[in-house]
Amino acid sequence: MSDYTYQHFNVTFPPERQYVAHVEINRADKLNAFVESMWLELSTIFTRLSSDPSVRAIVLTGAGDRAFTAGLDVKAASEGLLSDSNTASDSARKATQLRRHIAEFQECISAVEKCEKPVIVAYHGISYGLAIDIGVAADVRVCSADVQFTVKEVDIGLAADIGTLSRLPKVVGNFGWVKEVALSARIFGADEALRVGYVNRVFKNKEEAVRGALDLAGLIASKSPVAVQGTKELLNYSRDHSVAEGLRYTTVWNSAMLQTNDVTAALLSGIQKRKPTFEKL
Amino acid sequence: MSDYTYQHFNVTFPPERQYVAHVEINRADKLNAFVESMWLELSTIFTRLSSDPSVRAIVLTGAGDRAFTAGLDVKAASEGLLSDSNTASDSARKATQLRRHIAEFQECISAVEKCEKPVIVAYHGISYGLAIDIGVAADVRVCSADVQFTVKEVDIGLAADIGTLSRLPKVVGNFGWVKEVALSARIFGADEALRVGYVNRVFKNKEEAVRGALDLAGLIASKSPVAVQGTKELLNYSRDHSVAEGLRYTTVWNSAMLQTNDVTAALLSGIQKRKPTFEKL
Amino acid sequence: MSDYTYQHFNVTFPPERQYVAHVEINRADKLNAFVESMWLELSTIFTRLSSDPSVRAIVLTGAGDRAFTAGLDVKAASEGLLSDSNTASDSARKATQLRRHIAEFQECISAVEKCEKPVIVAYHGISYGLAIDIGVAADVRVCSADVQFTVKEVDIGLAADIGTLSRLPKVVGNFGWVKEVALSARIFGADEALRVGYVNRVFKNKEEAVRGALDLAGLIASKSPVAVQGTKELLNYSRDHSVAEGLRYTTVWNSAMLQTNDVTAALLSGIQKRKPTFEKL
Amino acid sequence: MSDYTYQHFNVTFPPERQYVAHVEINRADKLNAFVESMWLELSTIFTRLSSDPSVRAIVLTGAGDRAFTAGLDVKAASEGLLSDSNTASDSARKATQLRRHIAEFQECISAVEKCEKPVIVAYHGISYGLAIDIGVAADVRVCSADVQFTVKEVDIGLAADIGTLSRLPKVVGNFGWVKEVALSARIFGADEALRVGYVNRVFKNKEEAVRGALDLAGLIASKSPVAVQGTKELLNYSRDHSVAEGLRYTTVWNSAMLQTNDVTAALLSGIQKRKPTFEKL
Amino acid sequence: MSDYTYQHFNVTFPPERQYVAHVEINRADKLNAFVESMWLELSTIFTRLSSDPSVRAIVLTGAGDRAFTAGLDVKAASEGLLSDSNTASDSARKATQLRRHIAEFQECISAVEKCEKPVIVAYHGISYGLAIDIGVAADVRVCSADVQFTVKEVDIGLAADIGTLSRLPKVVGNFGWVKEVALSARIFGADEALRVGYVNRVFKNKEEAVRGALDLAGLIASKSPVAVQGTKELLNYSRDHSVAEGLRYTTVWNSAMLQTNDVTAALLSGIQKRKPTFEKL
Amino acid sequence: MSDYTYQHFNVTFPPERQYVAHVEINRADKLNAFVESMWLELSTIFTRLSSDPSVRAIVLTGAGDRAFTAGLDVKAASEGLLSDSNTASDSARKATQLRRHIAEFQECISAVEKCEKPVIVAYHGISYGLAIDIGVAADVRVCSADVQFTVKEVDIGLAADIGTLSRLPKVVGNFGWVKEVALSARIFGADEALRVGYVNRVFKNKEEAVRGALDLAGLIASKSPVAVQGTKELLNYSRDHSVAEGLRYTTVWNSAMLQTNDVTAALLSGIQKRKPTFEKL
Repeated sequence: MSDYTYQHFNVTFPPERQYVAHVEINRADKLNAFVESMWLELSTIFTRLSSDPSVRAIVLTGAGDRAFTAGLDVKAASEGLLSDSNTASDSARKATQLRRHIAEFQECISAVEKCEKPVIVAYHGISYGLAIDIGVAADVRVCSADVQFTVKEVDIGLAADIGTLSRLPKVVGNFGWVKEVALSARIFGADEALRVGYVNRVFKNKEEAVRGALDLAGLIASKSPVAVQGTKELLNYSRDHSVAEGLRYTTVWNSAMLQTNDVTAALLSGIQKRKPTFEKL
Repeated sequence: MSDYTYQHFNVTFPPERQYVAHVEINRADKLNAFVESMWLELSTIFTRLSSDPSVRAIVLTGAGDRAFTAGLDVKAASEGLLSDSNTASDSARKATQLRRHIAEFQECISAVEKCEKPVIVAYHGISYGLAIDIGVAADVRVCSADVQFTVKEVDIGLAADIGTLSRLPKVVGNFGWVKEVALSARIFGADEALRVGYVNRVFKNKEEAVRGALDLAGLIASKSPVAVQGTKELLNYSRDHSVAEGLRYTTVWNSAMLQTNDVTAALLSGIQKRKPTFEKL
Repeated sequence: MSDYTYQHFNVTFPPERQYVAHVEINRADKLNAFVESMWLELSTIFTRLSSDPSVRAIVLTGAGDRAFTAGLDVKAASEGLLSDSNTASDSARKATQLRRHIAEFQECISAVEKCEKPVIVAYHGISYGLAIDIGVAADVRVCSADVQFTVKEVDIGLAADIGTLSRLPKVVGNFGWVKEVALSARIFGADEALRVGYVNRVFKNKEEAVRGALDLAGLIASKSPVAVQGTKELLNYSRDHSVAEGLRYTTVWNSAMLQTNDVTAALLSGIQKRKPTFEKL
Repeated sequence: MSDYTYQHFNVTFPPERQYVAHVEINRADKLNAFVESMWLELSTIFTRLSSDPSVRAIVLTGAGDRAFTAGLDVKAASEGLLSDSNTASDSARKATQLRRHIAEFQECISAVEKCEKPVIVAYHGISYGLAIDIGVAADVRVCSADVQFTVKEVDIGLAADIGTLSRLPKVVGNFGWVKEVALSARIFGADEALRVGYVNRVFKNKEEAVRGALDLAGLIASKSPVAVQGTKELLNYSRDHSVAEGLRYTTVWNSAMLQTNDVTAALLSGIQKRKPTFEKL
Repeated sequence: MSDYTYQHFNVTFPPERQYVAHVEINRADKLNAFVESMWLELSTIFTRLSSDPSVRAIVLTGAGDRAFTAGLDVKAASEGLLSDSNTASDSARKATQLRRHIAEFQECISAVEKCEKPVIVAYHGISYGLAIDIGVAADVRVCSADVQFTVKEVDIGLAADIGTLSRLPKVVGNFGWVKEVALSARIFGADEALRVGYVNRVFKNKEEAVRGALDLAGLIASKSPVAVQGTKELLNYSRDHSVAEGLRYTTVWNSAMLQTNDVTAALLSGIQKRKPTFEKL
Repeated sequence: MSDYTYQHFNVTFPPERQYVAHVEINRADKLNAFVESMWLELSTIFTRLSSDPSVRAIVLTGAGDRAFTAGLDVKAASEGLLSDSNTASDSARKATQLRRHIAEFQECISAVEKCEKPVIVAYHGISYGLAIDIGVAADVRVCSADVQFTVKEVDIGLAADIGTLSRLPKVVGNFGWVKEVALSARIFGADEALRVGYVNRVFKNKEEAVRGALDLAGLIASKSPVAVQGTKELLNYSRDHSVAEGLRYTTVWNSAMLQTNDVTAALLSGIQKRKPTFEKL
């Protein structure tokens, strides 16, 4: 296994769950709040996992008892942002610097969505702002009963710009609810998140939520990686395209992918009632 | 405060809720059914509120006990329509007149969506046809327990063409339910509306629904208007675009909007534990 | 009534429900599993019903007690597919043959969506793989309490390519749930299907599910066919387009459709408290 | 004929060319430079002509010998703009005012494109900046030999925002040339405009250019207005959509329009070798 | 070679040009005007050629000296159309029949575009209306010096609806010229067609135009069919999509297609200075 | 000036042309053919220039007398590609590796398009394959009289996949010509390139072509960088979007950019008849 050592993240490969990577946000003393170096690391990690043939599913969690993440480290960010934009003397030039900065930040978070392997987020405790931006870029979300979510950005004077407003309406099919929580920045808990479909399941505490996420990751990792990665890609493509476009893209995608040995492996093991093994991808 | 006097609408500014406008459909003797002059007025009102710097959130309700609105005043409409289209002698020319007429009507209702400030609809009683067309153009919907909804149009021989069929599938993420209620024109009530996500909340009667809507509007109006109006715009944009398009538009939007003083005001008041005040917008 | 005799489908016209067609998958001894000739027949049937003026709504069910359909007859399919693709000697040529094959198969299933009349699926028992591909191309889905659904494809080493991955995210507004069931291939039952909005209603057994579907079809068939078919078309169009595009298409569509006599018929019968009759379409 | 009297435009109906309107920009002493009241008038005029049944084709020209238009009256505009935007105290609020202002200005110019009747522009002399914005919103452009075009905006420190950058790449299929003239603001003349396809024809002087435009308008006005207006609509729609979308919209459009009496009138007059007459539209 | 015998088309395979099919419209006594059975045959022919492994490029010409085609056989069409639509009693139902009819006709002509092999049209003489609809669905157009083109439809009271208005603006990058010829129905000749890019080359007479087309077809047919068919598909896809979408689709397409043996065959024959041979496709 | 030293490229800043960067492909002994390290360097260079405030326009040329570039170094590429893809044992896994590889290569070339500063390519001599892929990602193209272009890919058994097929139809508005040169791989020269609009201008030799490109770059670099960079962005955005989308994006873009001091600087220097100076961007 190659070396996955990072300053603000623990990346481990639980031995009892083959092909599963566990990424943990590791800045518990600051409620896992994000400084700039962290989103750059996040991007690096998920880009590497995306093409690592030893990985087939990923779980993302936050270290410590209190928070998945409290979001952006506002103090650090405002210092950085202000000093950056201060170098420009007119509003148009400041806008250019801000635009480049937002785009770069967005691209880091989008690494979670672009990761070819499914990503499951297990939330617990404080899960504010960036916690949603990251979660909507993942594939499946679960949480512990004590979770506190909020789309926090309007409370600090800005519209969320790292992904929540673009992805949340496509993750949760209740546009009025999305509007309300994004416009009011009110906190919502596990039950509400489950009811509207933001999370797939609520566990009684963090430990069980993480275990539940790892179980699901383990199940997915036991399937054909050709089938799993194609399913993620085609679902994400379809979200953003018409049905006709989705079908067309699917024909081309599967014209190569159906030539995999995994189909035979899966069918044979089905007949023989044994667990199939699949080549790495 | 400028003069907002209209024939069929009451527009008031509740003193206890700063920056909130309350628009009331005011034709209770006809169950608030719409004649043409009413949708023209509706458009004028929301277009004005959209750029009125004294307004940050809007509540829309219906006067009287019995109905939010019974929908189009079919009697008046059919007279108007027939007399209009009778001036053309062939079907193509009739079609041209109808097309212009529908487009104009749509544009009036779309003024609710284009309004830069969030709009909260509080339904009660009879809420038929046009009640849905208007509601899906708003941002958040609540209702009283006695509400009766129906996508009424198929029962008068036509497919709904003022917005319901274009917007409802994007407001409620249950396409089978949307199909069923639109194809059958059956009535559904508050509980069902809540369950499928058409309304955010059910109140026990009209009075409480209106108060609940005003409370939410008041809460939103207390936030940074730069943040709130950006959030509405970006959510509506994202509904109609791919995630990649949504993110790109967001970078450009926020490249100007992050230069607001509201961020500092919000952060400082957060530190100082006091309510921030924001410049008008 | 013209002749609708097919090898693997029963097409009947229940006398007590005017304008309703009942299509039954009829290969109960094989759990209604699909061989290639069946999806060709399915396409032929729905294409004919689409323009049959005696038909206004359609119910689709599966024969026998055990299954709506177990999905693709994998044994038959793998034989066919392998022999087909074996005629090409390099991967690019195999891909071309597979692409044409998938496109043709997709087009057959899309005949259900392209059918101008609403289609209601009544599921029962085993409803695997292709059962979902067909269901998401229909308009409304109901089921019996004993139903067992699964998006089965990853378990046979492939990403679903006949429609599920393109349409399911637009049928069910809970993208995390869609991801989970598509990536894990786990079985889900009637209650879960109802909760997430995959089915509109659960009946206690197959008989009642079929009757319920026929009742809904009968109700829809009693409405103006101009209104009903326009509603289906405009809802499907809007699913795949922005709100602005949906509104524009609607103006053109209704510029012809509002010239129907059905509006007058509907309004008059409303006034006269009698059931309207509408000319065929 | 209804009254078309405006401060800055002459609108006439040349008696020798039935159904043709001639709109002339009338501020020759200022090289027909545009102040805000002029683009508001322009919008009003084209919106009225769009639905005026006595009009089937429109010619747009500039008064005087020297200029079609020198573009925006920069002096007036900068005064207006600065005073407007000065009312806001932070960059975000200024941006909001500017955005509303640009959108309103764009909408005025778009009235030329939205006009249901074909619009032919006859350029002469100085034709700078706004001259291109207006021209690309029209259908056909001709010019006199002495014309001088320039996409002037970069020379005053801004990217053109009233239509040129959005429409010119779709009017002229030479993207490198579009880039060059928009980035360099260099002047180009009649021959170059003809060679790249910006104008359809070059006339030796203004008088002949105007007569040539009126001749073409007269020819178009002699055709079926159902056919002509449908052709304009479908071409503009197709420019902005895929071929598949264009074909689909066309089927719906013509499903009403083929029911016109004009087809019979055109066919009969063809057989009878006489000029057809068509009902107004 | 399988049998390609049709009533109104000659399909031949010139022995001196391997893998080239020559389709000739064969109703010279009626100027090759199209009746309904002809466009159905056209569709059948191109659909078959599309997957015929003995065919790699196709030339389409018209029999006789006088015309490629005079377009729709208006007399026959108007009889058919009128009798069809007469069976419906209201405008909405007539519209439904017309819509289905136009869609079916469009789909027949689109078979030329959907054909996986490149299609080269060689025009001569009268080439009216449908001649353009068919030509814009092809890949390359050449003509003889005596050709006479016209987008004829407005002269018979309708907007062209079988493809010209949707495809011509994407074939010729001079939108003003497209507008002018479509709105005026004026005739244009070979030189103008060459200048605006509607045809690639003008030959002095029909014989040479056909030979030139066959030469180009022969050249294309000598290349790798994997490369050629991919190039047609990717160019057509890109025409209708953004650059980003085009690039993404290309990666998936070529992920299978680069696995062809044709690359090695082409490279080796290049080194060995001999003509490569490629397996059928 | 920061250090721009690269193995295969010379990056210089001609002193007589302020704010212009000159990038030269520097592998003349191999006809400037590209190996993988070169496209990685190309991407790095243009990404740096994109945000380098000392740069406002860029010229790209090829070293030596004989070639701009002969395209991909096929020998090197086929070794790399084959060894890469050989590590996978089934076609689906090979496809995955190829897909990632193509996407990465595309992204490198797209750095030219994403570069915020205008890029002018000066071609000479052999300009094959990748020469077109790079050129279509640039903004303006010029060439010397001796240039030889070809879309070479079909001759080596593949459809071009690094940008030509996605961008060329949007650069040159003559789709038939694009089809012909891409399907036949025939060579075309300077005159033809000028006639169809692939290049803006032909110079008599390489030296003059480079000087001409630098002159144009110098002219552009003398303008407001806010205006120039906005113009590039809005033109590229508009190419890929509908007019309505282009206008909307433009309003938001310019809401920040119109707040630049460059407008005042440009206006004042215009009045004072002197050359304006603009702050860096």
